[in-house]
Parts: sequence; structure tokens; C-alpha cells
Amino acid sequence: MGWGKSVPVLKLGQGLRPGLRLGLGPGQGLRLGLLILLCCLALCPAPVQGDKVLVMPVDGSHWLSMKLLVKELAARGHEMVVLIPETSILIQGSDYYRTETFRVPYSKAQLDKNINKLKDAAFVKAPDVTDIFVNVQHLVDFTTMQVKGCEGLLYDEPLMQRLSGEIFQLMLTDPFLPCGSIIADSFNIPAVYFLRGIPCGLDERAAQCPTPLSYVPRFFSGNTDHMDFLGRVKNMLMYSLESYLCTVMFASFDELTSRYLDKDMTYRDLLGHGAIWLLRYDFSFEYPKPRMPNMVNIGGINCGKRAPLPVDLQEFVDESGEDGFVVFTLGSMVSQMPEEKAKQFFDAFSRIPQRVVWRYTGVVPENAPDNVRLMKWLPQNDLLGHPKVKAFITHGGTHGLYEGICNSVPMVMLPLFGDQGDNIHRMAVRGVGEVLNMFDVTSDKLVEALNKVINDKSYKEKMLKLSAVHKDRPIEPLDLAVFWVEFVMRHSGAEHLRPAAHDLNWIQYHSLDVFTLLLTIVLIVVMVTIKCCKVCFHKCCGTKRTMKRKSE
Amino acid sequence: MGWGKSVPVLKLGQGLRPGLRLGLGPGQGLRLGLLILLCCLALCPAPVQGDKVLVMPVDGSHWLSMKLLVKELAARGHEMVVLIPETSILIQGSDYYRTETFRVPYSKAQLDKNINKLKDAAFVKAPDVTDIFVNVQHLVDFTTMQVKGCEGLLYDEPLMQRLSGEIFQLMLTDPFLPCGSIIADSFNIPAVYFLRGIPCGLDERAAQCPTPLSYVPRFFSGNTDHMDFLGRVKNMLMYSLESYLCTVMFASFDELTSRYLDKDMTYRDLLGHGAIWLLRYDFSFEYPKPRMPNMVNIGGINCGKRAPLPVDLQEFVDESGEDGFVVFTLGSMVSQMPEEKAKQFFDAFSRIPQRVVWRYTGVVPENAPDNVRLMKWLPQNDLLGHPKVKAFITHGGTHGLYEGICNSVPMVMLPLFGDQGDNIHRMAVRGVGEVLNMFDVTSDKLVEALNKVINDKSYKEKMLKLSAVHKDRPIEPLDLAVFWVEFVMRHSGAEHLRPAAHDLNWIQYHSLDVFTLLLTIVLIVVMVTIKCCKVCFHKCCGTKRTMKRKSE
Repeated sequence: MGWGKSVPVLKLGQGLRPGLRLGLGPGQGLRLGLLILLCCLALCPAPVQGDKVLVMPVDGSHWLSMKLLVKELAARGHEMVVLIPETSILIQGSDYYRTETFRVPYSKAQLDKNINKLKDAAFVKAPDVTDIFVNVQHLVDFTTMQVKGCEGLLYDEPLMQRLSGEIFQLMLTDPFLPCGSIIADSFNIPAVYFLRGIPCGLDERAAQCPTPLSYVPRFFSGNTDHMDFLGRVKNMLMYSLESYLCTVMFASFDELTSRYLDKDMTYRDLLGHGAIWLLRYDFSFEYPKPRMPNMVNIGGINCGKRAPLPVDLQEFVDESGEDGFVVFTLGSMVSQMPEEKAKQFFDAFSRIPQRVVWRYTGVVPENAPDNVRLMKWLPQNDLLGHPKVKAFITHGGTHGLYEGICNSVPMVMLPLFGDQGDNIHRMAVRGVGEVLNMFDVTSDKLVEALNKVINDKSYKEKMLKLSAVHKDRPIEPLDLAVFWVEFVMRHSGAEHLRPAAHDLNWIQYHSLDVFTLLLTIVLIVVMVTIKCCKVCFHKCCGTKRTMKRKSE
Repeated sequence: MGWGKSVPVLKLGQGLRPGLRLGLGPGQGLRLGLLILLCCLALCPAPVQGDKVLVMPVDGSHWLSMKLLVKELAARGHEMVVLIPETSILIQGSDYYRTETFRVPYSKAQLDKNINKLKDAAFVKAPDVTDIFVNVQHLVDFTTMQVKGCEGLLYDEPLMQRLSGEIFQLMLTDPFLPCGSIIADSFNIPAVYFLRGIPCGLDERAAQCPTPLSYVPRFFSGNTDHMDFLGRVKNMLMYSLESYLCTVMFASFDELTSRYLDKDMTYRDLLGHGAIWLLRYDFSFEYPKPRMPNMVNIGGINCGKRAPLPVDLQEFVDESGEDGFVVFTLGSMVSQMPEEKAKQFFDAFSRIPQRVVWRYTGVVPENAPDNVRLMKWLPQNDLLGHPKVKAFITHGGTHGLYEGICNSVPMVMLPLFGDQGDNIHRMAVRGVGEVLNMFDVTSDKLVEALNKVINDKSYKEKMLKLSAVHKDRPIEPLDLAVFWVEFVMRHSGAEHLRPAAHDLNWIQYHSLDVFTLLLTIVLIVVMVTIKCCKVCFHKCCGTKRTMKRKSE
């Protein structure tokens, strides 16, 4: 117990440096370093051999918050090894963790093309119900490619043998893709999941978490938790559709899982073995719904720490006057848009008194207004924490939304793909932002929405309340995530939190066999009773009739 | 935000005392006091007017852990007002809180008689399935009496008017009895519930928490979370029985609720308005099962703090040698037993090498062994924390069990009534104790069970593991309870954690109306299709026949 718990392992080099910085001679520095080291060894819980965590992230925005946890775990003395595909978009090396790169059977260009398919549709056409199928097809294309990448890793025998030779205590993975869970099972180490969710609610299905359809809205249903009768019908239909889509979307996951592990199991079965689900949401954002004991909410994990702004940016926003400024990003994956669309934004920004900081790398029109600062990448959370920020234009990714909530900034939201439509719906019903469609956005609509969220005080007031509820928690999300990762390492899992539901099949779980038995017994009892009554009645009437005849 | 948060409100008198204690003159003391007061006012978040908590406890053992929370809240600057019936058993006044005593229409003797009915049966007869009905009748008698007591309070107009005149921000109550929730609704203040559970699972029903019958064992079913087919049938039958018992047991609660509040609502409906459920269990004790976002587990809240033992008791246990000692209590409500039964215990204790500390006020036989120390009341948690303790003989109340778990002490368990049978079952399946029946316990059985849990290392090892899991938590239960009470005060409730399920009726919650509609549509489509096919078939065949006839 207690080893590695919040105690960074002191390395020899680290122990020596303070002495050297104090201007001591080399010998004195060494003695002081050794003294500190000895004190620490005497006082600190001893680090345990093999205190290593294997990390299998999902590339793109998913990595951005997982990186925070990986760094924090490293800072607390755990050896982190991050597996990176050679076509990585956002995952890079760091002093905090070791990386292991694996080959994938596709190029960066092919990957980009695949990702672009996911997002580009949003700019050009109105969303409709058939989009689900198109999006699913895009998602299937994307995940199939990722599964191939995963195969590249799993069947890279030298690398896998080297990794299995190291003693990892835990797999930290985003189960949006199957590689991490498969390796955890293969290496026989517990897995901790770090995620916002998995399409078609596979996370809740796998965790055996009940989600009553009457008040837990399904994705893409457009429902809130308060549904009228038709809303509930829609929810039920969406659930049925999801169940079908789950089969289509995760077919390649299922196949790889059973093939590689040589077990007759689906990806959902495999996921059910996870020790802890670290869920990147809380109930200031999500609607209240049932949870399982091994689900831990860490919503807002990405907006804990703020850094100073770069000097020129600080000046730009400091000098925005009373009107303040607006932050505009479309997430880590989208920094461009069609030229015509961009013109609408530039035009809108020229008509508002606020300054604008915009992450944009696309074509800039000649008459671009002066109040706009374009950037290749921007420190979103740091900007949103500035006292002069007035509004946040966002695509509705959970990272951005939580940074908006943490910093109490009203939002104008334009969803692009994935869960973003559902995310912004959750914000809009709370009255903390306005929703626009990217496909038909105009400068007029933009100006109107911006003026609304900036000048109508109700948006800010509601956001302040939401932010207060979100930030009022007994422990910070990052510390909570670290705690549970370390818990699983200390106890080699979290078996006491695993519901027995995992050992039941669908019929057993829903007690259909029990219902059938009890119904059969009731029917038999009823039938026997009726039969007995009939026999009695006949006997009785028969006797009466016989007696009557005799008396006649 | 932030007011009252962990900051004791500094009262003028308190501010002055340090100066006076320092030996300063009256004038200097006053100046120093005022200086401290001013500093504090400048630095501390301002206390908010009306930062008062009304507490409606349930008497007996339920109060013992609630008292800890009440004291802690008082220590953190909240003004606590505890409502006490004049026949109180364990609730007493304190410097930490103000009490308000209310009259009840029964005497202490009548109350004792009622309580004795609950527990006495355990000493004299074997438990069987019909006990449920007997126990329910006893419980109904007990709760009916308590409801009368509650009426004594509710209809004490001068007292109620005085209380409603004070501005309370919160009602802290044990919903085992209805008075607290009714007052909270009547005063229009949020309620925080503090409980282990309510008979027939009314707590989970009221909180809209799903409890799948296939793996969540019902009380008195003797099931664990892993049930075979017959176990699940039994669980289902127990649930049906519970649903009936719920109606019987809470009829007087329902009647009082609707009468006093003049609303058409049941006690279950009323309970559903609670802001937070502080549940005195965790998953080292309970089987993993779904939870709702407003349920907070604070199992083990009662074993946080330990005090030094009285000197003579310390000597007695210190000098128990290598064999150590055994702690024996039957809870706060039972300190006696039939003479014959007690003899079995005295006889057993004379045959073990351990010393015994026993809370017992009954008849002592002449040949009582020397190794037994009898006490009217004993510091259970402090004794269980002593390094020489070897075993704990307990009736299986949750307070005692958690103190056993916290201190890693293997147990011999003899349940008496209520949830105790189920509690000890949870411990027994974890292999941390042995179960005996009080009605047929003999000295031989006792000696065998004690020797087993003391000498078979597996009990201690499993207890150490269970204890490690239980105590490894991100925040201590008492701090967590305080946090949520203060949260509810800061935000006037916890509305964001209230599931929309509360707004649905039974049919809507289970989507039965939606199923009916969809099934009807499917049936109509199938019937219309069949009809169309028939018509087509007839037309087709008819034409063929006509053509055939014509051709003939």
C-alpha cells in the first residue's frame, strides 16, 4: 500500500541539482544530494519495481486531455510508455514519457483524407437524418483504417515481445479504438479507460450501465432528458438503429479481438474487463443518468491549469477595451474552411466591436478586418480565462465546451461532426449559448448570435451558475484520475467494483427466464383451477340433474 | 461561492479569548481580539446569514454516525439545530449543536417494549421465512409509534412556527422516518439524506436507481450478487413480496405525508425530492450495483477518528500477551441476553486463551472467567484499532462491521434483527468472518468459530485486503459528507443531479406506451401486408383460373 502514491520518485540527478544550484562545491553538492536522497528514501514509501504504465492513446483531440493525465502520472513518479503510430497527427514525444513508434499500413495523406471526409460535409450541406448512415460509413472507414494500424502494432512481433518483456502494471487507453484493450488482455494487465464515450453507447453497454430509454437521450436523437411521447418514440427508434449500427461499426473490432486473442469474444465483452472508466464529462454538462461504481467522472480535466499568454497575444487582448474579445476555434482537427464560408466570418467580425482571436490557416480575403488576429494554434483555455473574453465560437468538442464552462464564457456553437451536435444541444438547453449551422451560416446570423450571447445578460448569468456547479467538487478531476489509475496499480485491478452483471447473458440479465417460469406456473395454476372448477361444476350440476331426473 | 466552506465562523467571544488567555489586560485583549476579527473578516469568505442546518435524526444506532457529521459541520461554522423526541434513547444535547425537544404521545417504557419486540425473538427461536411477516409487523408497530412521535412534532404549532421563523438552509435527516422530509418540504428547504437504507429498498425506488433483479440481491433473500436460476427466481419473488410489504409498511408514512403537506403524494414521491443521498456503505461491503449521480457513498464514516483508551482498559488489553483479546458487542441497543444464553458465552470465553472485552449488563454467573472484562459501554472503534485485537464478535450492524473492516479484524457474527442478517452475509462471502445463529449458539460452536477466525490466517489475510480496498479512497467519508451538505447549501439544492425519471410515471419510465405503439404499428403493417398478399394472390389466381376456363 501507499507506494508511488503521489510521491515522485527522486532520481539521483534530480537529487544533486539543488546543491549545485546553491553554489556549493561538487563534493558538497554530492553530499547534500545524497543526504536528501537518504532522507527521502527513509521517509517516502518505496517505489515498487515494475511501476510502469503502458499508454495506448487515440490520436487527434482525444489525446489532448489524456496527455495531461500521462504527464501528471509521470510527474508523480510513474514510468509512462506511450505507443504512437508513425502517422501520428498530434501525439509527440516528451521528456515526461518514453514513446514507442509502430508502423501502420497507410500514409499520413491517406489518414488526412479519411479524417477530412468526416468533417467536410458539415460545411456544404444541411444535416438530415440520412447523415447518420453517411457519418457511420465515414466512421467505419476511419476506424477500419485505425484497426489496420492496430494490426500493424499487434503483429509487430519484435516490438510486442519487447513490450511484453517489460513488466507493465497497467494499460491506460482510450477504448474508442481496440488496440489498448487487446494488449491489456494479452499482457494480462488491468486496463483503465479514458474517454468521452464510444459511438452507439458501446461504453455503457460494455460497462453494464443501465440507460433507461425514457429519460436518457440517445445520440443524434435531438432529445433532452425531458421527452414527450413522440420524443420517447424517437429515442426508442434511435436505440434500435444504434444497436444495428453497433454491429456494423464494430465488426472489424470484434473480428480483430477474437482473432488476436484467440477467444470467442466481441469487443464489447473485452471492454467489460476494464477496471475503471474515466469519463470526460460530469453532470453540469451531461443529463443525470445511472452510473456504475467503476465509472468516474472527470469532466473538465482539461481546464485545470492556465499558463501566461504570449506577450503579443496578451497585448492584443488586453487592449481590446470595454468591448473585449471573442475566441474562435473549430478544434484541433479543423483550421480551415471553404473560402466563401470564411468570408462570412470575416464579414461578421468586421461588424462587431469586439476583437477576435481565430485559429485559422485558410485563405484570407484582402479586406480582412483589423480586429481579427489569425493564429495557427491558440492557447484556448488561457484565452478563455482572460477577464476581457466575451464569447467563444466553437464547434462543440467536449474539450472546448468544458473550457467554456470552466471560464464561464457564453458560446456560439457550430457543430461539425461526431458527438458535437449532441454536445452543443446540452449547452443550448441550459441557455448558455446559441447554435448555428455551419452549412448555412451567414454574417448576419453570426452577428446576431454574437450580439445575443454578449449583450443579453442571461447567457452570462446562466453560464456563471453552470460554471459554479461544475467547479464545486470535492477533488479536482486530474487528481481523481490519477488516484484511480494508482488505485488500480495498487490493487492489481478494481475487482470489488465489477458488477456481477458481466456473468449474465441477455436473457438472464433481463430475468426473462425467471419471468417465463413464473408466468408458466401462474398459467398452470389458473388452468388447473379453472379445470377443477369446471369438474366440480359439472359434478355438482350432473348430480343435481340426475337427482332432478330421479325425482321426476 | 465559497462562503462557509471549511471556514468556522469566528464569533466575537471566541475572538477575544486568546488575548485574555495570553495574560493581556482587558483593553489590550479587546484590541487584539478586534484585530484578529478584522483580519479574519478581511481574509475569510464572509459567512452568510441563515447558515443554519436543521437536523431530524432517527434515534438509536442510526444517530451514532450522523452525530459525527453534525459535530463536524458545527466545527466548520454551521449552526446546527437537532430535533429530539422527549423519549430519546441515545440522542443527547452537546456544546456543538442546539437541541429542540418535542413531545411524543408515548412513554420511554412503551418505546423500549416496542424495540425489545424487534430484537428478542433472535435469542429464542430459529429464523424462518415467516419471520419476514413477524418482523414487518414489529417494524410497522415501531414505525407507527415513531410516526405518532413525528405527528407530535409536526402539530406542535408553537415549536413549528418558531422553527419556520428561523432561516434554515438545509434539512439533514435520516429518511428511515418521515418527519425530516416532511419538514423540509413544508419549510421549502433542500434535504440531504443520511442513511444505510430503508426497508424494502424504498431508498432506491425513491431515488429512481435501477436495481436489476438478476444481480442485485434483495434483502432477506440470502442471495449474493452471483445467483443461479433458482436464486434469481427467489430474488424476483422477494422483490414482489417487498413491493407488497412496502405498501403495508409505509401506509402510515404516506397518510401523514399527504395529510400534513395537503398534497396528493406518497412518502416515496416526497423522498424523491431529496437533493443528496449520503449512503453509509461502499463497495468493499456492498455488491457492485448501479447508482444515481446524487448518491454519495460514505461507508466507514464512523471509524475515522480514534481516541486513547481509558487507562484501566488500556492496561487490560495491553497485558493480553501474544494471544491478544476479543471484542464483543451486540450494538448500541442490546447489552443483555437471556441468562442461559449468556452462560454459553461465559463458558466459551473460559476456554479460549484470549482476553475478552464485552459490553454486557445482564446477569453474571458466579464462575465468570477472569479473562473477561464486562462493560456498560465500550469504545468499540478504539478497541478494534488496538494491535492486539484478534477477533470481533458482533451482531452485524453496519457501524460495527465497518469498524471491523477499517481495523482489519476478523469477525464472528450473530445477527439479531433488521438488515443484520444481510450485512453479515456480505462479510461471510468475502471470507472475513464466521456466522453463528444466536438462537442455537453453544459454547462449543463459539469456541470453534473463534479459533477458526483467530488461527486460520486466511480470515486475517482477506480482511487485510478488504480493509486496504476500503481505506484507499480519494477523500475521507466524513469530508465527503461535509462537502455535499455544504454544496447543497451553496447551490440551494443539487438540481443538476436530479434525474428526469422523477417526472415519469411507471408506464412511461418503462416505455410501455412506446412499446405498445411500436408493436401496434408492426402488427398493422404485418396484417396489411398479409391482406395485400392475399388480395394479390386471389387476383392473380383468379385471373389465371378465369384465363384457364376461357382457354378451356
